[in-house]
Amino acid sequence: MNTQRRGRKVETGPRAINQLPWKQPQLTLEPSRILSDDHLEAIHNESLRVLEEIGMDMIYAEAREILADAGAIVLGDRVRIGRDIVEEALKTPPSEFTFHARNPEHSIRIGGKWIAFAPVGGPPNCSDLDRGRRPGTLEDSNNFMKLAQFFNCVHTAGGASVDALDVHASIRHLHLTRNKMVFTDKVPFASSTGRHRLLDSIEIIRMARGISHDQLLLEPSAYTVINTNSPLKLDSPMAMGIIEMARLNQICVVTPFTLAGAMAPITLAGALVEQNAEALAGLALSQLSNPGAPFVYGGFTSNVDMKSGAPAFGTPEYMKACIVGGQLARRYKLPYRTSSTNAANSVDAQSAYETVFSLWGAIMGGGNIIQHAAGWLEGGLVASYEKFALDVDLLQMVMEFLKPLEVNDATMGFEAMKEVGPGGHFFGTQHTLERYSNAFYAPLISDWRNFPSWEAAGSPHADQKANALWKQALAEYQPPYLEPSRLEEIDAFVARRTSEGGEPTDF
Amino acid sequence: MNTQRRGRKVETGPRAINQLPWKQPQLTLEPSRILSDDHLEAIHNESLRVLEEIGMDMIYAEAREILADAGAIVLGDRVRIGRDIVEEALKTPPSEFTFHARNPEHSIRIGGKWIAFAPVGGPPNCSDLDRGRRPGTLEDSNNFMKLAQFFNCVHTAGGASVDALDVHASIRHLHLTRNKMVFTDKVPFASSTGRHRLLDSIEIIRMARGISHDQLLLEPSAYTVINTNSPLKLDSPMAMGIIEMARLNQICVVTPFTLAGAMAPITLAGALVEQNAEALAGLALSQLSNPGAPFVYGGFTSNVDMKSGAPAFGTPEYMKACIVGGQLARRYKLPYRTSSTNAANSVDAQSAYETVFSLWGAIMGGGNIIQHAAGWLEGGLVASYEKFALDVDLLQMVMEFLKPLEVNDATMGFEAMKEVGPGGHFFGTQHTLERYSNAFYAPLISDWRNFPSWEAAGSPHADQKANALWKQALAEYQPPYLEPSRLEEIDAFVARRTSEGGEPTDF
Repeated sequence: MNTQRRGRKVETGPRAINQLPWKQPQLTLEPSRILSDDHLEAIHNESLRVLEEIGMDMIYAEAREILADAGAIVLGDRVRIGRDIVEEALKTPPSEFTFHARNPEHSIRIGGKWIAFAPVGGPPNCSDLDRGRRPGTLEDSNNFMKLAQFFNCVHTAGGASVDALDVHASIRHLHLTRNKMVFTDKVPFASSTGRHRLLDSIEIIRMARGISHDQLLLEPSAYTVINTNSPLKLDSPMAMGIIEMARLNQICVVTPFTLAGAMAPITLAGALVEQNAEALAGLALSQLSNPGAPFVYGGFTSNVDMKSGAPAFGTPEYMKACIVGGQLARRYKLPYRTSSTNAANSVDAQSAYETVFSLWGAIMGGGNIIQHAAGWLEGGLVASYEKFALDVDLLQMVMEFLKPLEVNDATMGFEAMKEVGPGGHFFGTQHTLERYSNAFYAPLISDWRNFPSWEAAGSPHADQKANALWKQALAEYQPPYLEPSRLEEIDAFVARRTSEGGEPTDF
Repeated sequence: MNTQRRGRKVETGPRAINQLPWKQPQLTLEPSRILSDDHLEAIHNESLRVLEEIGMDMIYAEAREILADAGAIVLGDRVRIGRDIVEEALKTPPSEFTFHARNPEHSIRIGGKWIAFAPVGGPPNCSDLDRGRRPGTLEDSNNFMKLAQFFNCVHTAGGASVDALDVHASIRHLHLTRNKMVFTDKVPFASSTGRHRLLDSIEIIRMARGISHDQLLLEPSAYTVINTNSPLKLDSPMAMGIIEMARLNQICVVTPFTLAGAMAPITLAGALVEQNAEALAGLALSQLSNPGAPFVYGGFTSNVDMKSGAPAFGTPEYMKACIVGGQLARRYKLPYRTSSTNAANSVDAQSAYETVFSLWGAIMGGGNIIQHAAGWLEGGLVASYEKFALDVDLLQMVMEFLKPLEVNDATMGFEAMKEVGPGGHFFGTQHTLERYSNAFYAPLISDWRNFPSWEAAGSPHADQKANALWKQALAEYQPPYLEPSRLEEIDAFVARRTSEGGEPTDF
């Protein structure tokens, strides 16, 4: 394999993985619209009415106080938020900002036309073809971090792509964050599962960047995702997360998990009203805690299988929700987070078509952060090694699709057509030879051999090719440089917090 | 299974396939644009320059004469076509028209925002999980016709989805067309492999519709696809096809097969210039033969694998070409034909992601006729039974995605949210119960069971579920009614032409 194709880095071996270079893609075409302006305003207004007339339950007293101070009506846990509060909150967040990585080359832009692909986050289980489906361990989590670091089309380090169930919950966040900052130098996720865990994680991230607390306040260096407890409820760790992230000027993504028919109305319009109400409530809490704090509008509306209640992903309803979510985020001039998802149990055709339908909705919807874009399987219950490798090929394809098509005299090829003439072929022309080596996207998984050659090679399916790819990626992985003094500081912090018992749990 | 969901026909058995009802979808969102108007004009102008300065080789004398009469410069086989001829030809074809099926309920609209999905056509081989990959037979061809008839999301009867290699080529077209008009009542394809074969096929189609020759001239009742011999060449059967279809006022789709790097310049812009030049030459020949004849602009630009020369499909380059093809067709106000394709050797994840990327390009490109949308595998060398069934689910998903999202007071669900309140769930609400049975798309293949249930069921992959689906579809298939007198007329025609030796071949 020619490792110099497409201007990629020269890797160490002659058979190194020939991936695309690091680059953050942009949406080069107009995002899709499926709702008229009138219908979009109807969704907007109805969601303000929900906040005003029904309100949200907020379990965390400080959240209620912050909103009450701004004029919200509080009765017990219920907080009714007037549209004036929301409209005020819509004035302050940035439309676009820089998210700083510890390696400045891996810093990314959030918002505008920028797209960032984030790896799967959160599953308790992982799987691969060799070892099957099993609970996640710290070693698995490390491996997914290494894959996120290795593949250039993955733009964030993710959180824990799979949970490390072999490490006690009181200190798990310390080890996961420490490893993330050691094994990767891309922008990190900080899990919002309680104030101390969140602050520990951000402290480790700050140390890895080698910046002061003051500089951290100026530079978004971590992001978290707050999934509201739909419908219309915000629990304490989630509210704390919104408040703390805002105060630290770090990135908060509020993503209501509004499954139509379960936690949201069965009608897509209703689920979107609920999503919008909850996201705007999160925005209000964020901007009241620190006006101008970076905030990302999250959408995760899908439907359930009404026969079983199981969540479905990559469905036509999911695609529509992705696109309307983007219309709403653009109306608010907020960056937009969506996801690449599927509900398949194996890396088969279903996993692939649901994923590409998701990507279609996410990309054409104008998603800025696309979560779970590599490795998600089984509706988020499993982080799959093969799915991660397969998704890399899909993400690279999307990036290539988004590259502008060059139209000029040379690319229109008149002279080549004249030289070849009717009935000829272009294989040997100068026009071809000059462009031969990097004219087209070279896939990592897709097998384009003819049937006899493919059969002679053992008829490999895409999941088997993906199995070989992730293993090769782990073998080729090189840890990014981290200043020894920073590593020492991080390790000392982890040791101290571990000796203090970490964040105590009741189990 | 509830067979009355979504207003579908009530099938005979309680476990009948719960497919979507017959409906021709429309593109309800704006088609994508990836080229600026300036760049689009550059492609347009450069293709006119190709026709004017390089020209095309046309092997068929009558084609040269027709173009020469209009002012083209002919030297040997080479025909140089001035832009005035093309511009004149662009004035006469209809932008939108009705394509008449023998069952009027299955007539479709071609052009505008209308979309029609056509099954795979042309492969010499077929395959299924039980019998493997093998040369096609008449029985296989019949089976694919039955599947095209059975599934409502397939809008045409197709041609021969797989060739009937067990029937001699001299009479094969007679049997294929006869069976197509008996086993289906959807709009038919007529293969353009020589004047007599084409005229035989159209005669059978006319008989099945029970209309006179005069009425046929008024009503497009058959379509053919002309693949130019790229680069810049048109062989005799193809030129005859364009001329005869135009004279009969039947639908001619001219689709240059411009594989960048092989039969077209390696640059996508160059391949699109060549595609456009060849399609416009076909348009000129069509409209000069009969101004106003229904003509469809076809695009099939993809790239080859530069390592092996193998054609690649569903690539980023393919998606871009789909979208630019649509921009060109809309510039000319012509209906647009594109395809759903893939280059996989099995119904695995690759076959699915390449297909959905293709569909993404075809749909967002504004395709009106989407060929090969069910059953295509291996870059068109194989018609796959399982892929056909799998594709049905994908096409249904696209149709559901294109259904407008209903936004009104009832669907926005304020009262339901008020009733449920924070922290509740919507399963039992009146709002849910009223919509429960048909709220969401119910897939035919996708398996949303949880992992233990799925594993207990034998861990079926999507291709195995597709295997069960096509078998059930063939079992449920019912032949559409055909007046006995028409069938007798067709069978007498086939018998006579067979006794005459059909269309003689030299083998």
